[in-house]
Amino acid sequence: MSATILPLETPAAIIDVARMQRNILRMQERMDALGVQLRPHVKSSKCLPVIQAQMAAGASGVTVSTLKEAQHCFDAGITEVMYAVAMVPGKLALALNLRRQGCCLSIITDSVVGAQLIVAFGRQHAESFDVWIEVDSDGHRSGLKVDDCALLEVAQVLCGGGMQLAGVMTHAGSSYELNDLAALQAIAEQERAICVAAAEKIRAAGLPCPRVSVGSTPTALSALSLEGVTEVRAGVYVFFDLVMHNVGVCRPEELALSVLTTVIGHQVEKGWVITDSGWMAMSRDRGTQRQRRDFAFGQVCTEAGAWIEGGLLGSVNQEHGIVTFEDGQDLDLVNRFPIGSRLRILPNHACATGAQFPHYHACEGSGEVHLWSRLHGW
Amino acid sequence: MSATILPLETPAAIIDVARMQRNILRMQERMDALGVQLRPHVKSSKCLPVIQAQMAAGASGVTVSTLKEAQHCFDAGITEVMYAVAMVPGKLALALNLRRQGCCLSIITDSVVGAQLIVAFGRQHAESFDVWIEVDSDGHRSGLKVDDCALLEVAQVLCGGGMQLAGVMTHAGSSYELNDLAALQAIAEQERAICVAAAEKIRAAGLPCPRVSVGSTPTALSALSLEGVTEVRAGVYVFFDLVMHNVGVCRPEELALSVLTTVIGHQVEKGWVITDSGWMAMSRDRGTQRQRRDFAFGQVCTEAGAWIEGGLLGSVNQEHGIVTFEDGQDLDLVNRFPIGSRLRILPNHACATGAQFPHYHACEGSGEVHLWSRLHGW
Repeated sequence: MSATILPLETPAAIIDVARMQRNILRMQERMDALGVQLRPHVKSSKCLPVIQAQMAAGASGVTVSTLKEAQHCFDAGITEVMYAVAMVPGKLALALNLRRQGCCLSIITDSVVGAQLIVAFGRQHAESFDVWIEVDSDGHRSGLKVDDCALLEVAQVLCGGGMQLAGVMTHAGSSYELNDLAALQAIAEQERAICVAAAEKIRAAGLPCPRVSVGSTPTALSALSLEGVTEVRAGVYVFFDLVMHNVGVCRPEELALSVLTTVIGHQVEKGWVITDSGWMAMSRDRGTQRQRRDFAFGQVCTEAGAWIEGGLLGSVNQEHGIVTFEDGQDLDLVNRFPIGSRLRILPNHACATGAQFPHYHACEGSGEVHLWSRLHGW
Repeated sequence: MSATILPLETPAAIIDVARMQRNILRMQERMDALGVQLRPHVKSSKCLPVIQAQMAAGASGVTVSTLKEAQHCFDAGITEVMYAVAMVPGKLALALNLRRQGCCLSIITDSVVGAQLIVAFGRQHAESFDVWIEVDSDGHRSGLKVDDCALLEVAQVLCGGGMQLAGVMTHAGSSYELNDLAALQAIAEQERAICVAAAEKIRAAGLPCPRVSVGSTPTALSALSLEGVTEVRAGVYVFFDLVMHNVGVCRPEELALSVLTTVIGHQVEKGWVITDSGWMAMSRDRGTQRQRRDFAFGQVCTEAGAWIEGGLLGSVNQEHGIVTFEDGQDLDLVNRFPIGSRLRILPNHACATGAQFPHYHACEGSGEVHLWSRLHGW
């Protein structure tokens, strides 16, 4: 990042494009070396130029969290799309519409009822949906346990009902709670092994299960082997953030998203510098609260991006952010951080902070700044 | 709210228009009875039909948290606008532009430096800005203490520099932390008394201080007297939410904003119902965490809006919400809340939840549903 950022109104969400490109390359090279495809989860950026940079680096397709993202990617020429939230009847018409446009949209389910609903709709509309079965590899959220007899039943319902069984997929979201390399390697191996075992169980029953999809940023960056896996999904690696920093999968100089903010006042006797980066800019995400280092609502940096040690965005109102300092009262705050001067705040969670903004300001090393719009809503 | 809501994709932010209208009327009638003007803070809705309903009920103008809101209101014919975040040089050009268009935009400051910067810009552009001095009535955030000698100095800088001193304003944000009527009445009186004292101090020095503006939803609804006050600012009362419910200023049947969500799965052995209302829909706001009743990420209701006692949105991922029940495991969850069925979630903080959506679905008692867009960004 160049030392001087062009004048921008604040608060603004700044992407350091050079860092982002390095992050994309790092993940793509790792996946290439492990012999698997990378299908980035675009929920992190929801921004076409970012997604296009991931595709240009070698991604095989995208993962989306909403059908709006799917449509957006498809409109830009990306056809290989997985909608990675369990499908429900109310969303099947949109999914069908995307497929009828030519999008190779795959969907997921983790229950017999869910599979039956997809089959019923598919038959009604003469559509053979590509369906993944979601597997629970860590008890974190959704998915079928590998030893649940429903796993085979779902596969049978889908195949018997004329759907295409795309494969099995899982997400070891509990990896976000770790911060130790050995533990990360272990959860990555658990994610891989359980998902591969689910695929093998289905294949052993004589059903097709061509693909095995796993992933989260921490496991993708920690896995020692991805044997049996065909593709990895990961999202936040494109920007990284303080949560990932605490997990231990990125260095400070890899954080590619920050919020540019203006100093709007002080409460000197309290040691507060007040900024225009409230929760409307940062989000209310407190992802580092229970991690090894609590960054409150964000790490304070100079406008050029250098960490101000001990400077945290301590609390937030809607449009007010209160910067506090570890060493408490500092009578020179008014001069060090005068009204109108600017700071940058590194967010806990890049996905949540990005979502507060209609667009990013993407800053090139050359000093050039692009306005990149991002999706909002469903 | 009618028992059946028209088919909508989920998640969707639902406004119960009848409740909203009653909330607007309740606050307006209270302010009328207390003899003060009401200047609603539109940061809560950022939505023109909501703001227009407030104006139609008798509001004297609006309070905004961004200049984008100011422009939006002005474009709709609302000329009396207070931008209630301390002004900085980088935003003065936008403020000037609004005033040159004919908007009666007033701005605020809480420091001598801030006042000097406004004066310098105003003189440079031959503009006499209307400026409020922000007073700190509870140590919560910004503002000058009434006994700070800078209070008079700021007034002198503004008046001496050719600006119009609009008056003094304060916001007793600490009222959100209370839940007892006597304590709420006390903080309301403190907010009033301190702000009036600041005005009197300025007037005693021979300077004009025509207006006294106070407010927050809890203090506005608790004040016994507003003597000396000319106007009240309040925002979230238009929808109310679980935080305000815990503060004790609204009843459950006054909560006018909810998130409609679809059941997408279950983890039966854990007693979980999984929905499509993750943090992207609810926000990460945990405003009830330290209140007398912790609603986690929201209170679960039936689709028609009836509270399901003990049902909470216990945790959230980006697009997944996990509903948990106080009584723990319930083997009938799959039948009680089948895949594809719908629930409604009442949010902790209406301002934060609304901000996650590009539009509201405004439901009339007749069953009619309007799509009301809301502002996003700065």
